Amino acid sequence: MYGVILAGGSGTRFWPLSREEYPKQLLKIFGNRTLIQATLSRISELIPTEKIYVVTTPPQLEQIRFQLSLETHSKLNYISEPERRDTAAAIGFAAMKLQKQDPEASMVVLSSDHFIKDEPEFLKSLCIAEKIAQEGYLVTLGAKPIRPETAYGYIKAGPSLPLAHGASKVEQFIEKPDRAKAVRYLEDENTLWNTGIFVWKVRTILDEIDRFLPELSEGLKEIGKTIGTEKEEKILQTTYAQLPSISIDYGVLEKSEHLAVISTDMGWEDVGSWNALDEVIPRDNSGNIMTGNVVNVGSTDSIIYAGKRVVGVVGLENIVVADTDDATLVCNKESAQDVKKLVEVLKKHNGDAHRIHRTVIRAWGSYTILEEGTGYKVKKLVVNPKSKLSLQMHENRSEHWVVVEGIATVTCGTSVYTIPANQSTFVPMGVKHRIENATNDFLRLIEVQSGSYLGEDDITRFEDDYGRVLSKKTE
Amino acid sequence: MYGVILAGGSGTRFWPLSREEYPKQLLKIFGNRTLIQATLSRISELIPTEKIYVVTTPPQLEQIRFQLSLETHSKLNYISEPERRDTAAAIGFAAMKLQKQDPEASMVVLSSDHFIKDEPEFLKSLCIAEKIAQEGYLVTLGAKPIRPETAYGYIKAGPSLPLAHGASKVEQFIEKPDRAKAVRYLEDENTLWNTGIFVWKVRTILDEIDRFLPELSEGLKEIGKTIGTEKEEKILQTTYAQLPSISIDYGVLEKSEHLAVISTDMGWEDVGSWNALDEVIPRDNSGNIMTGNVVNVGSTDSIIYAGKRVVGVVGLENIVVADTDDATLVCNKESAQDVKKLVEVLKKHNGDAHRIHRTVIRAWGSYTILEEGTGYKVKKLVVNPKSKLSLQMHENRSEHWVVVEGIATVTCGTSVYTIPANQSTFVPMGVKHRIENATNDFLRLIEVQSGSYLGEDDITRFEDDYGRVLSKKTE
Repeated sequence: MYGVILAGGSGTRFWPLSREEYPKQLLKIFGNRTLIQATLSRISELIPTEKIYVVTTPPQLEQIRFQLSLETHSKLNYISEPERRDTAAAIGFAAMKLQKQDPEASMVVLSSDHFIKDEPEFLKSLCIAEKIAQEGYLVTLGAKPIRPETAYGYIKAGPSLPLAHGASKVEQFIEKPDRAKAVRYLEDENTLWNTGIFVWKVRTILDEIDRFLPELSEGLKEIGKTIGTEKEEKILQTTYAQLPSISIDYGVLEKSEHLAVISTDMGWEDVGSWNALDEVIPRDNSGNIMTGNVVNVGSTDSIIYAGKRVVGVVGLENIVVADTDDATLVCNKESAQDVKKLVEVLKKHNGDAHRIHRTVIRAWGSYTILEEGTGYKVKKLVVNPKSKLSLQMHENRSEHWVVVEGIATVTCGTSVYTIPANQSTFVPMGVKHRIENATNDFLRLIEVQSGSYLGEDDITRFEDDYGRVLSKKTE
Repeated sequence: MYGVILAGGSGTRFWPLSREEYPKQLLKIFGNRTLIQATLSRISELIPTEKIYVVTTPPQLEQIRFQLSLETHSKLNYISEPERRDTAAAIGFAAMKLQKQDPEASMVVLSSDHFIKDEPEFLKSLCIAEKIAQEGYLVTLGAKPIRPETAYGYIKAGPSLPLAHGASKVEQFIEKPDRAKAVRYLEDENTLWNTGIFVWKVRTILDEIDRFLPELSEGLKEIGKTIGTEKEEKILQTTYAQLPSISIDYGVLEKSEHLAVISTDMGWEDVGSWNALDEVIPRDNSGNIMTGNVVNVGSTDSIIYAGKRVVGVVGLENIVVADTDDATLVCNKESAQDVKKLVEVLKKHNGDAHRIHRTVIRAWGSYTILEEGTGYKVKKLVVNPKSKLSLQMHENRSEHWVVVEGIATVTCGTSVYTIPANQSTFVPMGVKHRIENATNDFLRLIEVQSGSYLGEDDITRFEDDYGRVLSKKTE
């Protein structure tokens, strides 16, 4: 069995902790691991890392790769979609890749940002699911509801399958219900939460895609022909964007006749909005969940996420406050679904607060914009041990660097020299330059940019460890 | 008539916009002027600037002086209390100073942070008050209540004084009432809000202080003897801290028999807490007051104060959000009085967020701490035209300066040189240095400090335009 982790997400529902380029799976919402780290860790118990594929898009790839590199030293596989085309395309593309390697493969499809409390139960359910999948079923894990949740889809289980305990045919997929229906479903032991965790043979899902989504199937086949050839990248770029954008649920599962569901009790939660944290994190005596630099006077039943900045809360009830370096959310718990709408409004504005954090993680480390003014910008750069930025040049700005920790190896024009902490150097406009950290410790430096245009896109790359020589978009 | 503006305030009730060293009167809560600027502007219509005295303490003096210098070019008088000893001492001290100059003086006492809508009505009332004060009365302006306010004290007016229309003897001072009483007072035309605006002859108030607060009177007389002599400063420092700390209301007005009140309709408000803004600022169609970088989805009846940072609010009702560079408040309107308690908690913590803003205003300009880390600190300095910092030295840190706007005149050791924008310089540890802006434009520079100890108190001053050579506390 192969593992396929769908690492998508638009970073809207947990804004401002999540951003378009830093979605929920990259957050440590609970515990010491980010959600995607926890997802990998969980499935690694069953599937060796080298048989796990992470599907994502280029803006998120760098940070996912970084986080997962902290989780495992083994080789992990990445599938990069040129752009997001919903789950049917992502799953179909992954299935196509797996089929090339192993036509008899089966695959488990996981979201990267779910919460599962009971891992042994989860793994046990997957084993049952795999057994059923071998018989040609598309298998979904269903979770027994523990409250009348209106934010989840449901599955109505039909007759039991004799193949395995807890497995049934699917009678019906049910959309997110209203409150009254959700209360009824809670009492019906045959109605389960649809977890979006799927197990099937690669052959089965590709056949069903062919049957119900012929246009998608066509596109995938075209891409499939070039997999492993030199044409792959080019065909992928042109064809992928044309694939129909539809979810696997709507596109295939609601139509297929080969559906099974495993009833589980694994403590699954989708954690789809700020108020959903109440379901997965223990509250204090006042019903609050609070983290970071919070000072509370008399608030109850509230969720307060702070970082280093001081967040003072007074007399709140059922309020969510989420604070980051550059943006703050204050939201009524009942309106948590509307955070999406807020992010839509932000997108229409000029700013970047919907897309990136004040600190932006890069393959070589990170940068933080400390200050911007007319004609200047101040950044903190952190360069990871044994890492270097690209050899680059700016047409419209010069840069002053003051090293505050570690030792920088600087290329400036034809010179190469080192600067220790408490020394500085200057890179004139139009001169090729590079910062490298050749040591085993972190390098921290303050960069003061000066010039008439200070956009991140004023960069020409000559050499880069991360294949970004063609790109003009990132430092 | 002389004007005495009491510029006190502990900066707690409008935290985080107000701070201990940046209290409410320094804020532009409404309109284009700060509250103290508006106070000066208002009273200047009646009293020439050179007859106006501003009473305050050293931590606030610099910023008050700066703000008022933008309001008037004429000479304004400052009385600096060595420390705060409540209103009886502040008023007594000011009266003592005035008496030395002009024994027949009368004075109007104003708070620096009140709101008055109808200025002509205010000035008219002061003229009436002055007339009555000449007869030996302690006169208070009373405002006709327009709602059952429980946050204000009240005055019960007694028999009319034949001296002027709208003037009465005072029957009783009434403490902040409960809601039921406040409703009753609203219906009684003889019960007025106590505005804390007083008019009296200097001689009258000093006589009454002598009668009811003999200990305070003794201390004031001792200070009075030295006024204008070289001993003044020293006696003030030792004696002032020993003065009894009591309000003029409790200490004198509630006991005196020579009290009068003028009934006015001047649209006075104390604006004593965040929720009081609803009384003085028009709300939008959803009942909100919003300013700065706010994105709102469906909030109503809320007060949102943002700056440059993004503040997103979703579905709030009757909530106050106040955001600054380093701290955010989220408060239920009904709990607005408890913001004080929050600041008390903050004081007990290590941080500075109760005391100062991220940007600290100085006589020479301002500084902003952009970043702090182990062994380094990054600041932005803005130096006003024709201003300079002190000639100083640091024992434990060196400093890198990158000029990003304007021209710096730098003293470093025995050298003096200028640096234009996009150039930098280095000041080694233990070397005397100074930054000066000799131009007519603003100077902006980025300072990167590097060293084992980076506290503001590592400073030895050799020369200073602002008399701070002895002080170790401020840059």
